[in-house]
Amino acid sequence: MKTNLCALAILSTLSFSAMAVDCDPNLLPSWKDGSSKTALLNYVENSTDERKDSFVPVAERIAVFDNDGTLWSEKPYYFQLAYAFDQVKNMAEQHPEWKTQEPFKFVLEDDVKSVLAGGEEALLEIVTATHSGMTVEEYQATVTNWIAAAKDPRFEKAYTELTYQPMKEMLAYLQANDFKTYIVSGGGVDFMRAWAPEVYNIPAEQIIGSALKYQYDYNDGQPQVIKLGEILTIDDKAGKVENIQHIIGKKPVLAVGNSDGDHAMMQWATSQPNSMAMIVHHTDAEREWQYDRKSSVGHLDKAMDEANQRYNWHLIDMKNEWCTIY
Amino acid sequence: MKTNLCALAILSTLSFSAMAVDCDPNLLPSWKDGSSKTALLNYVENSTDERKDSFVPVAERIAVFDNDGTLWSEKPYYFQLAYAFDQVKNMAEQHPEWKTQEPFKFVLEDDVKSVLAGGEEALLEIVTATHSGMTVEEYQATVTNWIAAAKDPRFEKAYTELTYQPMKEMLAYLQANDFKTYIVSGGGVDFMRAWAPEVYNIPAEQIIGSALKYQYDYNDGQPQVIKLGEILTIDDKAGKVENIQHIIGKKPVLAVGNSDGDHAMMQWATSQPNSMAMIVHHTDAEREWQYDRKSSVGHLDKAMDEANQRYNWHLIDMKNEWCTIY
Repeated sequence: MKTNLCALAILSTLSFSAMAVDCDPNLLPSWKDGSSKTALLNYVENSTDERKDSFVPVAERIAVFDNDGTLWSEKPYYFQLAYAFDQVKNMAEQHPEWKTQEPFKFVLEDDVKSVLAGGEEALLEIVTATHSGMTVEEYQATVTNWIAAAKDPRFEKAYTELTYQPMKEMLAYLQANDFKTYIVSGGGVDFMRAWAPEVYNIPAEQIIGSALKYQYDYNDGQPQVIKLGEILTIDDKAGKVENIQHIIGKKPVLAVGNSDGDHAMMQWATSQPNSMAMIVHHTDAEREWQYDRKSSVGHLDKAMDEANQRYNWHLIDMKNEWCTIY
Repeated sequence: MKTNLCALAILSTLSFSAMAVDCDPNLLPSWKDGSSKTALLNYVENSTDERKDSFVPVAERIAVFDNDGTLWSEKPYYFQLAYAFDQVKNMAEQHPEWKTQEPFKFVLEDDVKSVLAGGEEALLEIVTATHSGMTVEEYQATVTNWIAAAKDPRFEKAYTELTYQPMKEMLAYLQANDFKTYIVSGGGVDFMRAWAPEVYNIPAEQIIGSALKYQYDYNDGQPQVIKLGEILTIDDKAGKVENIQHIIGKKPVLAVGNSDGDHAMMQWATSQPNSMAMIVHHTDAEREWQYDRKSSVGHLDKAMDEANQRYNWHLIDMKNEWCTIY
């Protein structure tokens, strides 16, 4: 018994030492010294050293990051959907018809499986009902209140605590090296702007997302902007490239995502010299989630194949390369 | 004769002294010391002094500027139209049908009046024909070549030389005081991005404009973005507010324009404390152009009425407040 305890103590010390060696407390402390960290450090060094051919002028240091599954978790379903579901419940009293009307009845019955079975059409109906018909300020006040109180069911943490510590370090590292970091996400732009600027240190104007149409209303001298129930843009797949072109007007040199929804953006970004793509690969069933080719949320298949073939595309192995997840 | 010459010499000296007194060579040198310059200096002082209630945090120092008629001239017609007309001529050989087809035949016949008589529909047809069906890079290369060579017919200057010196000083002054300066113009965003970053020191990602739809094309591994012949957004009137909400996600504290197309943007911006609106009033027929209520291009009527009633809206009297125009 005494020997065993001793062995355990030694093991524990060894493990601690290994951790200390693997993870440099001074530089990207949540990243193990592995191929992804090396790729990131090399990329930043090469693109910021004026003496090198690989130098990227500051004005062109545009780095785009997907959000769901790249900067925070996205399981068991997108957190914005959790918001929408909670809002359906909050609004149910004013909508007695929802008790019998799909997909709302499924939400009220906590039958998430049936909601999701309704596909995009059902989700769009829910999002429209809960995200429109109010001013942007009213909507964002509701999101702010919700995100301060809501807990994720598995980890029992606030959703903003389910943002990835290594990715926040990566953002800060890039920012310190004069990269302009953008979020380019399928999530709603007004939803993200309610909390992401503080959590990621990315200002509202560097957040691109899906959006409903806006309508300016003079409102007798109290001008306001209303969120309409029609889609303005879906920021996914080719839509990400088109929105970056429209809004930023520059081809990013660094694109980071986690799914085939980010594939076009990564292909476009890396169709130029001195560029890089990184993919957060969800390999850690214990500390986070494990999924890729077979998952519908965060489906990662073709982009992973391409990553395996291209020298400047890097898969981030969450389980083996991250000392800390959250 | 001698006396006359002497009087002239004295007059010339006096005039020079008056200029030197009116225009401070060290601070906004092209602005006479007048009400607009005072308003600008006061606004910046009040919004950047942390000890004052009027302080505006850096993240909220968003200043939006119209372009046509606000940062550069817009007469006898928008310069982007001059580009479109020149392109119609350049493309005419591939379009023999244009010889008999309105509005193209009018362009080929240099009958600008008839072109403009066709209204928005005619202009849209011309813009679509000359601004779509190519990649963004191809389009911008054409714009860059054109703007380097084309001359305005009245002043015989390059169009980029018809940008207003006082407004460029104002942009620089705001930038030096940590304002993020944006262009929000009815002009095409890709057109402006080809030259405005250099001319105004405003990066591509801070230029908002009208846009045609974009289409991402994987193109066998040589990804590109094509400009389609459909409108994505018209950045005018309420559309300016809606695009600022969508793209910046913040209500600007300072809005500057010259026409009723900027009215909504100015009303929205000044619907909050510590905000200001400024209007470039075209009062100088000699050095530039003189127009307001009766002009179709740069129509300024309702916004001028509102400026006359509101303490934090300022009309910039070009003739009497600017030492230099270009």
